[in-house]
Amino acid sequence: MALTIGIDIGGTKVAAGVVDEDGQIVEHLLRPTPADNPEQVAEMIAEMIRELAKGREIEAVGLGAAGFVDETRSVVRFAPNLAWREEPLQKKVSGLVGLPVVVENDANAMAWAEAKFGAGRGESHLVCVTVGTGIGGGIVLNGSLYRGRWGMGAELGHMQVVPGGRLCGCGKLGCWEQYASGNALVIEAKEIAAADPERAARLLEIAGGTPDQIEGQEVTEAARQGDPAALAAFSSIARWLGQGMADLAAVLDPGCFVLGGGVSRASDLWFDQAREAFAEDLSGRGHRPLADIRLAELGASAGLVGAADLARRR
Amino acid sequence: MALTIGIDIGGTKVAAGVVDEDGQIVEHLLRPTPADNPEQVAEMIAEMIRELAKGREIEAVGLGAAGFVDETRSVVRFAPNLAWREEPLQKKVSGLVGLPVVVENDANAMAWAEAKFGAGRGESHLVCVTVGTGIGGGIVLNGSLYRGRWGMGAELGHMQVVPGGRLCGCGKLGCWEQYASGNALVIEAKEIAAADPERAARLLEIAGGTPDQIEGQEVTEAARQGDPAALAAFSSIARWLGQGMADLAAVLDPGCFVLGGGVSRASDLWFDQAREAFAEDLSGRGHRPLADIRLAELGASAGLVGAADLARRR
Repeated sequence: MALTIGIDIGGTKVAAGVVDEDGQIVEHLLRPTPADNPEQVAEMIAEMIRELAKGREIEAVGLGAAGFVDETRSVVRFAPNLAWREEPLQKKVSGLVGLPVVVENDANAMAWAEAKFGAGRGESHLVCVTVGTGIGGGIVLNGSLYRGRWGMGAELGHMQVVPGGRLCGCGKLGCWEQYASGNALVIEAKEIAAADPERAARLLEIAGGTPDQIEGQEVTEAARQGDPAALAAFSSIARWLGQGMADLAAVLDPGCFVLGGGVSRASDLWFDQAREAFAEDLSGRGHRPLADIRLAELGASAGLVGAADLARRR
Repeated sequence: MALTIGIDIGGTKVAAGVVDEDGQIVEHLLRPTPADNPEQVAEMIAEMIRELAKGREIEAVGLGAAGFVDETRSVVRFAPNLAWREEPLQKKVSGLVGLPVVVENDANAMAWAEAKFGAGRGESHLVCVTVGTGIGGGIVLNGSLYRGRWGMGAELGHMQVVPGGRLCGCGKLGCWEQYASGNALVIEAKEIAAADPERAARLLEIAGGTPDQIEGQEVTEAARQGDPAALAAFSSIARWLGQGMADLAAVLDPGCFVLGGGVSRASDLWFDQAREAFAEDLSGRGHRPLADIRLAELGASAGLVGAADLARRR
């Protein structure tokens, strides 16, 4: 049985695993990211690979990283979390471990894992939206991962949805991830609580008294207890998720959407509303099939499983 | 030399042509569309095919129609201009002429023609934006026409760019084609002329005196004569074109955009501004190659040439 190693390089943690042909994780490692020293990341990854490869025949290694990866799947051109610029990650790691290595955008790797082994099994045309602090995206078309001409496709969080809207980390205004992410949830909740503290009484109590103390987990907790402000914040991101998916359906006409990321763990508070908003906002509704919307199934390991499987198909 | 016939079914005219393997039109016919009697369209198309096929060996026929075409390339599910609903066009025409027939969305056929024989020759990843009364779109990815899961991809004009914005013919609010099309140009010019008639003095003179008489051709004429209001209307659609292309680049990362349609004939008045707006609005700018933006080369015959070539590749 051919084994590959998948590695998901996050801003705080590096997850690595040996993965078989069925997407099952055979062995798993988790280490803190040496984020203050990006030069050490390649060395640390090589160490994890050596450890996992001991006594096994490993065919190839897939590395998933947040950022723009070039079309040759070798160089991380720009990674905001790790301060990488034109980082030749493929060459470095491959040189250290003597195995074939491919580099993938982390959200692309997650989308591939969900399409192959998770919620999107059997779908030929799928859009994966990772709703965490921001929004990550991955696109599978005609059964293959879609990377774009230069490897920079599926940056879904950076479609503009509000002209002149909230400032985004990417430097633009009004990006989708400023309205439909975990960050957006907190922004909405703070705004509502500041404008109408009575409505946000329970939320403010949980958060410690003032709007600027509100964090994502507290919005979720308050919403579950029926706090109207927290519920309104969830409704807002649900509507924006639906609208953005409708825009993507106008362009890509996928068979299904798969929603993952941290915010999807509170899906009971927004999933139905997002689905309704999508159906309502879809252009040509009534004259076309409605794409299915599903929750991701593979959780936090999707990135490494996808990277490992993409390395197998290199 | 294998010949196919391509037919472009518009709301007012039907263009048909015999096309060779190099995309050259060997013979050409143009007839008015029997728009008030959609039942007659198939019969008329069959007649044109018989006429063009006389004395020639025809391999297949491609029909391009404005509207949603299903993924089997047989049925026009919904065509606003021709009042077609679930029209089995492939079966009807094929039954009448005894040749293989495929049905394509007209903007998809145009995009394919530009990718194969026009401004996009040699590009593997291309987005074609047809800026006419509205906005049509076609997408070529990895060298193939992209149709979507159900044949309804690339409805680019119906991405929402302004929440709660102008009402679109599709029933939604704020669609791209309400801000970056020939219609949008006229709306902008009327609004500016109504708010500030002095600024629009020349435009109003050309149009006959009142803002509601303004038509597209007059905005173009006034802009060429330096009318500030007409120039501002062109600037507005140029900015929106650039913004929409930046959104599409975030999703698709194409190697180039090809801009066609009636408004592209006045490209001297907006093309450079659209290109600047695109570069400015692109997420991740500075860290990625800039997609090329080009004008379409094949003009009004792109639809039939593309349909004919897609029939050859059926």
